[in-house]
Formats: sequence, C-alpha cells, structure tokens
Amino acid sequence: MDVDQYMAELGRAARAASRKVAASSTATRNGALLATRDALDGARQSLAEANAEDLARGAASGLAAPLMDRLELTPARIDAMLEGLRQVANLPDPVGAITDMNTMPSGIQVGRMRVPLGVIGIIYESRPNVTVEAASLCLKSGNATILRGGSEALASNRAIAACLAEGLQAAGLPEAAIQVVNTADRAAVGRLITMPEYVDVIVPRGGKGLIERINADARVPVIKHLDGVCHVYIDDGADADMAVAIAVNAKTHRYGTCNTMETLLVAASAAAQLLPRLEQAYTAAGVELRGCDRTRAILPGAKVATEQDWREEYLAPILAVRVVGGIDEAIDHINTYSSLHTDSIVTRDHARAMRFLREVDSSSVMVNASTRFADGFEYGLGAEIGISTDKLHARGPVGLEGLTSQKYVVFGEGQVRT
Amino acid sequence: MDVDQYMAELGRAARAASRKVAASSTATRNGALLATRDALDGARQSLAEANAEDLARGAASGLAAPLMDRLELTPARIDAMLEGLRQVANLPDPVGAITDMNTMPSGIQVGRMRVPLGVIGIIYESRPNVTVEAASLCLKSGNATILRGGSEALASNRAIAACLAEGLQAAGLPEAAIQVVNTADRAAVGRLITMPEYVDVIVPRGGKGLIERINADARVPVIKHLDGVCHVYIDDGADADMAVAIAVNAKTHRYGTCNTMETLLVAASAAAQLLPRLEQAYTAAGVELRGCDRTRAILPGAKVATEQDWREEYLAPILAVRVVGGIDEAIDHINTYSSLHTDSIVTRDHARAMRFLREVDSSSVMVNASTRFADGFEYGLGAEIGISTDKLHARGPVGLEGLTSQKYVVFGEGQVRT
Repeated sequence: MDVDQYMAELGRAARAASRKVAASSTATRNGALLATRDALDGARQSLAEANAEDLARGAASGLAAPLMDRLELTPARIDAMLEGLRQVANLPDPVGAITDMNTMPSGIQVGRMRVPLGVIGIIYESRPNVTVEAASLCLKSGNATILRGGSEALASNRAIAACLAEGLQAAGLPEAAIQVVNTADRAAVGRLITMPEYVDVIVPRGGKGLIERINADARVPVIKHLDGVCHVYIDDGADADMAVAIAVNAKTHRYGTCNTMETLLVAASAAAQLLPRLEQAYTAAGVELRGCDRTRAILPGAKVATEQDWREEYLAPILAVRVVGGIDEAIDHINTYSSLHTDSIVTRDHARAMRFLREVDSSSVMVNASTRFADGFEYGLGAEIGISTDKLHARGPVGLEGLTSQKYVVFGEGQVRT
Repeated sequence: MDVDQYMAELGRAARAASRKVAASSTATRNGALLATRDALDGARQSLAEANAEDLARGAASGLAAPLMDRLELTPARIDAMLEGLRQVANLPDPVGAITDMNTMPSGIQVGRMRVPLGVIGIIYESRPNVTVEAASLCLKSGNATILRGGSEALASNRAIAACLAEGLQAAGLPEAAIQVVNTADRAAVGRLITMPEYVDVIVPRGGKGLIERINADARVPVIKHLDGVCHVYIDDGADADMAVAIAVNAKTHRYGTCNTMETLLVAASAAAQLLPRLEQAYTAAGVELRGCDRTRAILPGAKVATEQDWREEYLAPILAVRVVGGIDEAIDHINTYSSLHTDSIVTRDHARAMRFLREVDSSSVMVNASTRFADGFEYGLGAEIGISTDKLHARGPVGLEGLTSQKYVVFGEGQVRT
C-alpha cells in the first residue's frame, strides 16, 4: 500500500472513530485513560526493549546528544507518563457544556454547546512521551487523533500505541480513536496536513523550522507555536527590588523555554540606578548582555546589540537590553519586535499598567510578574498541548478547551421564520 | 507603483492604524460610524454619479442582470446603509472585557481580555453596500480593514471610501483604519491574502467558487462560509402539523439563502402519513421533489434522487427527500452529506432531541425550529459579517465577537517562578 493510500485509510478510520468518541460519556473516556495507564505500567519491559532499539539506531546513525536524551524513555519518564494520564482523567470534561442561552424575540432559545473539533493531527519530533501526552488530551476533549512522531522514535511509539489501543479497547472505544502513523516515510506528513476531509486541525510540536514548514504546506488549519521573543519592561518609578527580581527570574530561571525573556526594556529614568544592579546579577548567572547605545553608556562591558538582536529568540544565556524613553517607546518596541508571545511590565502606575495590557498585542500580557508564568499549568488549565502564537481560535497556553469548538444550539417549539 | 508595492503600502498603513484603532475609546469609534453616516447622507449626489458610472460600464460590458441589480445603489439601499451604521454604533463594544479571572496558587491573577484581531481583509463581489457594512463591523470591533470589492463597483466604492475617510477624520482616527483597494488589478487579491505580516484574517464574501479559490491560495487565516446543505429530520412520532410547518418554511421561505433546507429526512414510521401532505404543500409552492426509492414508493410523482442530490446546495425550488429508518440513519446521513451548516430535528422525544444536538456535527443544530433561523440577527448577535462553516475560531453566524480574540492578562505583585 502506498503512503497516500495508507494515510487516507487512517483518516477515514479516524473520522468514523471521532463520531464515536464525541458521543461517548466522560466516564468512558476517563476509563480509557486509566486503562492506558495500567497497560503502560504493565508494559515497562516491552517499552524498554523498543526504546533500546530506537536508541541503538540513533547511536548508529550519529544522532546528536540532545536528541538522544529526548528519545530516551527512562523509568522516571514512564512514571511521569502514568501520572500525566491520571491527571488528565481527573480534569473536568469540557465537552457538552451549554452556555450563553438566551430567548429571542421569535421565541427560539439560542445557546452554544462546547463540542470536540473532530480529528486532530499531531506532528512532533523524537520525544516518545509526547505520544501519550497529546493522545490523552485529544481523547479527553472528545477528539480522535492521528499522531506522527519523529522516525527516530518509531519502535517506542509502536510499543506505546499498543498500550493506547489496549486502553481504548478496555473502555469499549474504537481503536482508531488514537492512531500512530506506522511508517518513517516523510510523505506521511505531507499527506496528513493536506486532507481536510479527514483532519480538522494540525498541532505541530517542535522547533520553529518544523512548524514553519508545516504551516507553509498545510491545507488544514494549524494551531501553531512559533517563537517566544518575550520582553520585560521596567517602567519609570518601578519598585527597584521587584524589577530586579522579575528581570532576573524571567531570564535565568530557564534559558531554553519559550516564555523566557529575550529582551529587557528599561525606562531611561530608571536605567542609571537599575542597570548596574542587573548587570551584577546577570554576570553572576553567566548571562551575556547586548545593549543599545544608551545601555552601553551605563554598562560599558555590554556588547553592541544589532537590529537582529531585537528579533532573536536566543534560548541561551544572552540578553538584549534597550533603554527606552518610557512606556510609548516600550510598547512600540514590543509591537515591532515581539513574537506576540508574552510580555510583562513592572510598574507602580495603574494607568500605564492598564495601557500596557490593552496595547501590547501579545498572547499573554502581564503586570508585575515574570514571563515564566506563561504556561498552561501556571494558568490553571490543568494541561497544555502547546502555547499558541496565533490570534485565531486559541491564543496563548492551549488546554483542553483549545481542542474544542462551540456550536449553536437552538430549542424551538415549532417556530418558523416569517 | 506596482500592485505588490501598492498592497504592501496599504498593509503597512493598516497595521500602524490598527494599533490606534485598538487603543481608541468606544465613543471615538462610535463617533466615526455616525460621522460616516452623515457623510454618506450628504454625498448622495456623488454616490449616485459614481454608481451610474459603474452601471454604465457594467451595461457596456454585458454584466448579467443579477450582478447589475447587486451593483445598484438605490436611494433605499443608501438609507439601509445609514440605518446599518446607526445600528452598529448602538451595539455593545466587545473590546476590553476581562473575564474568567482566577487567582492561582502562585498568587498571580489570570484572566482573559477580549481584543481586536488587528487587520481584517475583506474580499467581496459587486455589492457596494458591503463596503460600508463590513467596514463598520471591523471598526466597531477595534480592527483596521482593507476592503477589496468587485472591480465592477470600483467607482461606487471610491465614493464610499471618501465618506468613510471623512468619518474617521471627524473622530480623530487615522484614515488608514479603513482602506479600499483602489485598483481593478486582480493581483491585488493575491497579495492581500499572502501578507500575514500585515493582515491577520481574511473574510471572503461571495460565491463558493470565490471562497474556494481564496482559501486555496491564502497564507493568512480565512473565516469562510462555504455551502449550506441544510437538513430537517422529521422524527418518529413528531407532531405532524409542526413537522409540515417547519419543513415547508425551511424550504420555501427563501430559496437562495444558505440556511434553506436542501434535503428532507423523514422517519419511515411517519413517511406514509406525512409525505403526501408535504408533496401537496411543495407542489403548491412550485418545489420539485427528488426522492429515494422509499420516498418514490409513496410519492410516485417525485423524480429519482441520485447520490449527487444528497450533496447539492440547490439554492432553488428543488428538494431532495429521503426516508430513513430512524434517528441513527438520519444522523449518519447528515454527518456524511451535510456541509456542517445547519440541521434541525422535529421530534417529541427528549432523548433523541439531545442526541441530535450532540451528535450532528454542524455549526447550528436545532430542535423543532426552522433552519431559516440560522442568522446573526435571529441569534441576537445584532450584526453578522457572515456564517462560518469552519470549526476553528468562529463557527456559525459571526458577529462582532468573531472579529475579536482573547489574550491572557496576568496581574502580579512581583511574583517570580520558583
């Protein structure tokens, strides 16, 4: 069977299964999640063997160390998968809620019902634990899923798929509710993202390059996360201790995450006092500073920031620093260079706080908090399939609700239009 | 200046203006709408002259009669534009509302703020009144707009654009908040839909062909309305009078609208009693029936329905009729052939009503009401930019809320992530 035909088969089966999943009860879907948990727990041996196979293949083909690390299914990572399944089973079910019910002049009652999207395609790289995480969120939200993981993890994903099938079967749900693409052929991805008749949305998880390629070629809507060029702006008159604490945390808590600050903006009136304190803290943490001219007048040790630095997602211990005249310049800078991810103001001024919230066009805008809080768990979503930098449908951290839609429901008593 | 460059200029100006519009007060935006109303009222003479120019060009190039009709700006249509502007000014402003505010264990408060999308591109055909309608909805919801109407209406749209500019100016908003593409070059559309750096969403309004072309080529998200293959299912045991009233209204109230029923499904147990009554009513209205074998066994006068008939949006006095075993077959039929627009069940049975609502995967699902109610005004949205058959972002009738998004807002008191 060729790849096109194979993917169309998966699509057809997913579409049919999605109807069954959407109509299933919360208890049934939770049952499948917990049965999958038990199946994985019982399959530790076969998971380890499959993973060893992938790791051996990776080592033989010279896979880079960070990719080898992501590929590995350690006992602790399997424990985390089991715990994740338990947590998702315990989350409230978003499906079925009817809200915004109103009676219209015609007498009909109109409301909105939260419903699954249908079939979700997930495309990701070499982390096998994403298979369980993504599948569980899609199932909980009443959707069918087609998962396409990195070919490096093919054996691990097959072993996980067997456990997912066991869980679905135990709950009486169709196995096609969660399908793992069982081929390393790259054409499978091309087909998955161009069959809107079977797939309602694609969620790519991985590096910016992967996501840009998928977005360019997709004929199915994509919920995507591009880069996180996040800012902290220290306002005129901000509390100095708070400003330092937030600016240091936002940069140094973790370097490789999308909600890490990449550019610090400081009001001119605060720069002379704060920049030397900040430099000391950043130097202690090993962070390289790249500054504008006004920054370098205060911190001669900082390197020169170029235009490119304002656009850069370093994901590394490097920070671009710019002194701005005040909030207007700060908002201009952010709306010019930000990737629309997360930006924070440190201020004591209420009016400027509210202006920042309204006028900065990013998925998360914060007052007096570290950008590192932009995260589904910290926002109370209970889970996260990703952080969307899109403006449509789901924006910011995407939990179960982002995997659903709302349809209009109308209750009449025989009304006709006159 | 070439078209690419011209469109990029419009885009840049729109992006800059969108920030100003987003930050403007409700009163300012309403003021611009009412000033536009006055400007149009004062420009009736120049509107009539511009429109006469378009009509003469249309007549000379042999434009079809329905297109000539759409193109015409009668005094009554100008009155309707003025009234529309007044109504939009009176609608509640969706922008700025903060909802879902919760305090997290870390102490941060997280909520969602409703915000404009940014820049909206509208592509439509030869109705000049759409220029005012679409521009007013985009402005009210805090967005900048680039409008690209049919080239047949170029002179009329230029005259309207002058009034829109006057209205914006009177309110102190940038003129680039509403721009009308001032070239008949078709390459302008191609550019408009492929500049995500300047345009956040495209709303095409027009025939299915136009929308499919735009959707195929767009690199910007599209809020689209494809076809309306709507169903009424008359359930086992339905009230006969109600069933006939709804089935007749859903088909015959208007033939050319997207929420008109195109296929009638009748439970086998009700068919013998109801189909002859329905045939009588449809024949009186001049509706041609095309039935399945079981339908034709009861109504020998009906033509044969082919597979293609189940997929057809007739937009004409033709109706496909199918007898089904019951609700399972009805839901299967709808989920196979429906365009996900609007489907209604006529029933007395509560459990089947709720199953229909949950399991039919359409943007509007109804119980005991005519499909003709699927409309922004009947749903109380106050206005409508279109009816979305997409599942993401906006589904069903799209009002002002569909032209906005929600971002996360976080209020802290200096919290950092530990």
